[in-house]
Amino acid sequence: MKIEGKEYRALWPEGSIVKFIDQRKLPYSFEIFSATTVDDVAFAIKDMVVRGAPAIGAAAAYGMALGAKDVDHAATLLRSTRPTAHDLFYAIDSMTRSMQQGEKPFDAASRYVETIIAQCKNIGEQGKKLVFDHARILTHCNAGALATVDYGTAFAPLRTAHRAGTSLFVYTDETRPRLQGLLTAWELRQEGIPYALIADNAAGYYMKKKEVDLVIVGADRIAKNGDFANKIGTYEKAVLAKENGIPFYVAAPLSTFDPMIRTGADIIIEERDATELTEIQGKPIMPLWVQVKNPAFDVTPKKYVTGYLTEKGILKTV
Amino acid sequence: MKIEGKEYRALWPEGSIVKFIDQRKLPYSFEIFSATTVDDVAFAIKDMVVRGAPAIGAAAAYGMALGAKDVDHAATLLRSTRPTAHDLFYAIDSMTRSMQQGEKPFDAASRYVETIIAQCKNIGEQGKKLVFDHARILTHCNAGALATVDYGTAFAPLRTAHRAGTSLFVYTDETRPRLQGLLTAWELRQEGIPYALIADNAAGYYMKKKEVDLVIVGADRIAKNGDFANKIGTYEKAVLAKENGIPFYVAAPLSTFDPMIRTGADIIIEERDATELTEIQGKPIMPLWVQVKNPAFDVTPKKYVTGYLTEKGILKTV
Repeated sequence: MKIEGKEYRALWPEGSIVKFIDQRKLPYSFEIFSATTVDDVAFAIKDMVVRGAPAIGAAAAYGMALGAKDVDHAATLLRSTRPTAHDLFYAIDSMTRSMQQGEKPFDAASRYVETIIAQCKNIGEQGKKLVFDHARILTHCNAGALATVDYGTAFAPLRTAHRAGTSLFVYTDETRPRLQGLLTAWELRQEGIPYALIADNAAGYYMKKKEVDLVIVGADRIAKNGDFANKIGTYEKAVLAKENGIPFYVAAPLSTFDPMIRTGADIIIEERDATELTEIQGKPIMPLWVQVKNPAFDVTPKKYVTGYLTEKGILKTV
Repeated sequence: MKIEGKEYRALWPEGSIVKFIDQRKLPYSFEIFSATTVDDVAFAIKDMVVRGAPAIGAAAAYGMALGAKDVDHAATLLRSTRPTAHDLFYAIDSMTRSMQQGEKPFDAASRYVETIIAQCKNIGEQGKKLVFDHARILTHCNAGALATVDYGTAFAPLRTAHRAGTSLFVYTDETRPRLQGLLTAWELRQEGIPYALIADNAAGYYMKKKEVDLVIVGADRIAKNGDFANKIGTYEKAVLAKENGIPFYVAAPLSTFDPMIRTGADIIIEERDATELTEIQGKPIMPLWVQVKNPAFDVTPKKYVTGYLTEKGILKTV
């Protein structure tokens, strides 16, 4: 991804140090977090220096490399950081196997990360054909380079089309409660793509006005039948897109399809802390007495999905 | 409305002083604003000490009474405060007529306000039958006593049913950008009605889980054909309710129907200041560079409306 005109990744190794764009500080300031031990990496995941399932997987791969002298300890420590992140476990297992087979730890980690990046790059190549000239695209949450090391998933077609000279405009939902739309706005600005951040409430307004041509979102997990889990509010946007005849695409690597999960009904939704709603950047925006419910994800049934945008192409049915 | 167990209105006269619950301070603190001149009332409307179309009308009526010595000056001053508020102009004209006919200014204002309150009370009586025992109701924005002097419009059936002993639970959308859901949460808490404030993104999630039985919202203006304008996000909730087979009611006095407006297409939507999104209580929550679009209202087509809940009963068609 471009940042002040220079190419960056969400995290990268420099010798035996792993560096991270500190996402706790974005978009307010741009700072680098350096990890020299597996403990530093575990902290970075837990404290959300790095976020987004693929990027967490990448961090864990480098964490395993830094902790290679005691693989069991490193694996146990990293597993405890974000217990619901599928990619985290996948990365830890994959690294353990590679190192058992004698691959050098940092080589194995870099190979793991390059695979993720190549998938996202391909999602961009496959998806750029959806982005016609002057297209107006709505996205939700952040499925950009910050969440996936580089390119992004839902963001990849926007970046690739823009770099190929296509003119486009992006509406980014602010994505309450955690405002990840701000990260998307930051990536769009860095890339030079025109955009507007809008209240989640305004997405339907622009769809009904025929000012949205296309919706692209990411996915945390896709069930065998095509139902998928993603950030809370995704279901609302999917229903509104269908009601207004707007194509709705889910961008994700094929690894996001979970054959162990039959339908969306089998996906368990995490209820997260009330402070995600009642505070912003650690400062209260609501009185303490306010009663809050805060589901973090929702499940969108397959019937609202026009296609699944993967590194192998666009799948219309699963 | 009950506040700490005592009956209040959003505003009321005490001798020749007009007192307001200061809504700029709610729900963070409960303070009273006193107006002794028409200029004070104009300030109260402009600075949003008082908000909600019917309550603004009531404030203007008392403002005209305070400024009765120079009716033209008072009318001109009050008209300039919130140029898009329909009730404001209606109240000014109504007061001018009453005073020309020789009615005492404070008597005319009180008569105007009592009419609004009686309408809302009747909306509660008519609407309470919709609220069955253990009903779970979703509402959007604040259409409570704060916005209407007493009882509320969308809130009136909840208050009336609760006071009659019906058990109910309310989901209140936080209603970004201005978070009027907090005012609804405050009224619900004062009334002793169980509730949860949720992100606007989570409304669809609870509807799909069959945990919402009924949606009731207010309206700023209703076109002749039944399309209606209300706070941004109302359209999204209406589409989601229909998709999930949940009844969706619009609560408003008959005066909200505007026979001069044929359909929703004729309603002009106000784009408001970006700082409504980028700041909360005057403090920035986003960097200055963020590009924002902020439509304040949306229009929901008639086809999504189950019924219009008015002081004369529930209208199924218009």
